[in-house]
Amino acid sequence: MSLIVQKYGGTSVGDVERIKRVARRVVQTKAEGHRLVVVVSAMAGETDRLLGLAAQVSDAPDEREIDVILATGEQISIGLLSLAIQQQGYKARSFTGSQVRIQTDTAHTRAKILSVEADRVQQALQEGAIAIVAGFQGVTAEDEVTTLGRGGSDLTAVAMASALKADLCEIFTDVDGVYTADPNVVPEARKLARISYDEMLEMASLGAKVLQARAVEYAKNYGVPIHVRSSFNMSQGTLVVQEDAEMEKVVVSGIAYNKNEAKITVLRVADRPGIAARLFGQVAEANIVVDMIVQNISQDGTTDISFTVPKADYPKAMQIVSGVAEEIAAQQVVGDDKIAKVSIVGVGMRTHSGVAARMFEALSRQKINIMMISTSEIKVSCVIDAKYGELAVRVLHDVFGLAEGAMVEERL
Amino acid sequence: MSLIVQKYGGTSVGDVERIKRVARRVVQTKAEGHRLVVVVSAMAGETDRLLGLAAQVSDAPDEREIDVILATGEQISIGLLSLAIQQQGYKARSFTGSQVRIQTDTAHTRAKILSVEADRVQQALQEGAIAIVAGFQGVTAEDEVTTLGRGGSDLTAVAMASALKADLCEIFTDVDGVYTADPNVVPEARKLARISYDEMLEMASLGAKVLQARAVEYAKNYGVPIHVRSSFNMSQGTLVVQEDAEMEKVVVSGIAYNKNEAKITVLRVADRPGIAARLFGQVAEANIVVDMIVQNISQDGTTDISFTVPKADYPKAMQIVSGVAEEIAAQQVVGDDKIAKVSIVGVGMRTHSGVAARMFEALSRQKINIMMISTSEIKVSCVIDAKYGELAVRVLHDVFGLAEGAMVEERL
Repeated sequence: MSLIVQKYGGTSVGDVERIKRVARRVVQTKAEGHRLVVVVSAMAGETDRLLGLAAQVSDAPDEREIDVILATGEQISIGLLSLAIQQQGYKARSFTGSQVRIQTDTAHTRAKILSVEADRVQQALQEGAIAIVAGFQGVTAEDEVTTLGRGGSDLTAVAMASALKADLCEIFTDVDGVYTADPNVVPEARKLARISYDEMLEMASLGAKVLQARAVEYAKNYGVPIHVRSSFNMSQGTLVVQEDAEMEKVVVSGIAYNKNEAKITVLRVADRPGIAARLFGQVAEANIVVDMIVQNISQDGTTDISFTVPKADYPKAMQIVSGVAEEIAAQQVVGDDKIAKVSIVGVGMRTHSGVAARMFEALSRQKINIMMISTSEIKVSCVIDAKYGELAVRVLHDVFGLAEGAMVEERL
Repeated sequence: MSLIVQKYGGTSVGDVERIKRVARRVVQTKAEGHRLVVVVSAMAGETDRLLGLAAQVSDAPDEREIDVILATGEQISIGLLSLAIQQQGYKARSFTGSQVRIQTDTAHTRAKILSVEADRVQQALQEGAIAIVAGFQGVTAEDEVTTLGRGGSDLTAVAMASALKADLCEIFTDVDGVYTADPNVVPEARKLARISYDEMLEMASLGAKVLQARAVEYAKNYGVPIHVRSSFNMSQGTLVVQEDAEMEKVVVSGIAYNKNEAKITVLRVADRPGIAARLFGQVAEANIVVDMIVQNISQDGTTDISFTVPKADYPKAMQIVSGVAEEIAAQQVVGDDKIAKVSIVGVGMRTHSGVAARMFEALSRQKINIMMISTSEIKVSCVIDAKYGELAVRVLHDVFGLAEGAMVEERL
């Protein structure tokens, strides 16, 4: 008898009929003899409805009160799902973040989980009940309601799985797993049977929106195996697990693609300490998240700095950077929001050489110019002209043999 | 500087515009220099919407889960009202029943308040904030969410006022006070400046829906002065307070009127111990609340028992009673759902004699037949034919001189 944590997102519990469907699926797992904890999000649209109400009464809503309001979304879901499961003749009991005691720091609307005391949930499981836990929410040491930020329900599920030493954390979503590339771009893309935490992290942060990066990180730190699968069918999804020797045989596991960034370059910046801090400090103050940063060696005591920001923040970022550029006597600021970032990801890169070179060669053969390059141990990202984005993904998918199952597929 | 508890019902916070209006009124009281705790209900319609969702997933919803779901209604209200008050430039902080620590017993959907620890609310007040408290909800010693039943927000307000030793508990509602009779029936009805807890209790239980009877009882036990007033205008309402010598000078303070009951009579019941217990035991098991019970002296070893039940429960009650009547070999069961109950209420009855006689005389002068009579220390109720109900109210209002201000009106 295993202990399984399942997580269903807002779309899966979007209306009463879908809640009933989730209840049937939960009951089916329970009937197989497992102990079961189910984490749910707010019904799709509810969080936006609540934020809309708050926006109508306040121009700059206090985040403490926003959390009080938002936490109701998941509280309704857990109650309804418990009732739907009980209607099927099974025992179920709901728990808010406060009742579980998912303790967080005090950073309202984006709190970090500090600890999970799951005594009451354990108790419910021992009594044979299915425990239904509100995702996305926690409580501070002073009993203040907090929320974990968008996608926080994934994190709740992983944290519950870790606290309960669960055998598996199943994340049900609207895609049926992690693919070697976006199937909309590459029709031959294959579903991966397994992927390592680090690869998943790179995929998540590079734009594959299957799993929240923070949840993957938490799972990695605590060794929680995650199964990403579809809530609409019964097929096996992708297992996100510790990296093993088998995985290292595969050089590239997947191609990530992101066309929601823009690029800014500051030309001829004085190459002395403190300049970069000043530049990125002001950008950070405006809550703009900088992704890639590239700076090359200096010539004549000056250097060029390029970086990418989310496309939505591009106009604001250009304005800020132009201001700073003047202060620091840089020559010029140029920007481009018609770019795409294409990345190859794979733990095999740690042990295989020449992978980046193969990527650059493949792109150059198509006459695709590379504007920026950034690498990590298990990833190489290139910024290119937006119009070549999809072509680049297809070419790389082909070059690294992903369609043929270069990665050993395994059944769970 | 007084400490005031204000309570606004679901209609007063029914939409975003109304919440803003409540915020302005709250801020106005705060600006007068008072410390302020505001208790709010769920937005009008929200509780029914949530119950509707629950009914769609479950035939017989578990009351624990119902409470988890219902409690979200007030949680949204407190967050929105806090934000609306902050928007006016004032400090506000919201508290759920669990956060205040309104501790109740475990009777879900109709829990009783056991104690109120208001340390955190005190703290907020000391910091100059307006404390916004969720009405209608509490928490058990085991941290389970409970609700107090319909109208429970009045009770929350009174309990908060008691725990904080507030100077006044203001209940804002859609009527502007307590009247000598329903103004729809008696155009000359007068708003009472003051009424005693006991009178208010009789009025509440006799069908005047201004204040929840449980809230009045709690206020009486802990000596909390209540001011019932309109949320739509600034006029003084009615003060519900301890009875004093001035009040006793007035024989009748008000006329209560209830046309939502039906009458059942069991004829020729054997007059021996245990029979009444058996009859009313079975009615109670069906969750039917019996109001008046009248039994006269026996003749030939048998007696007649009459009682009233809510009109909605009348068919079910007739069915149950007919069954019992057969078991206990009663002669016959007769029922009538076309009745009205008219009552005179006043603490002055304790010290004045002949009040009931004056009532009976006034009714008989109009040829109104009295079917049942029931009295308490400060009340006389008569059940009459429904068609004479409004006439009876007007006649009694006149006979006891209520229009002329028999009760000494006082400004607050």
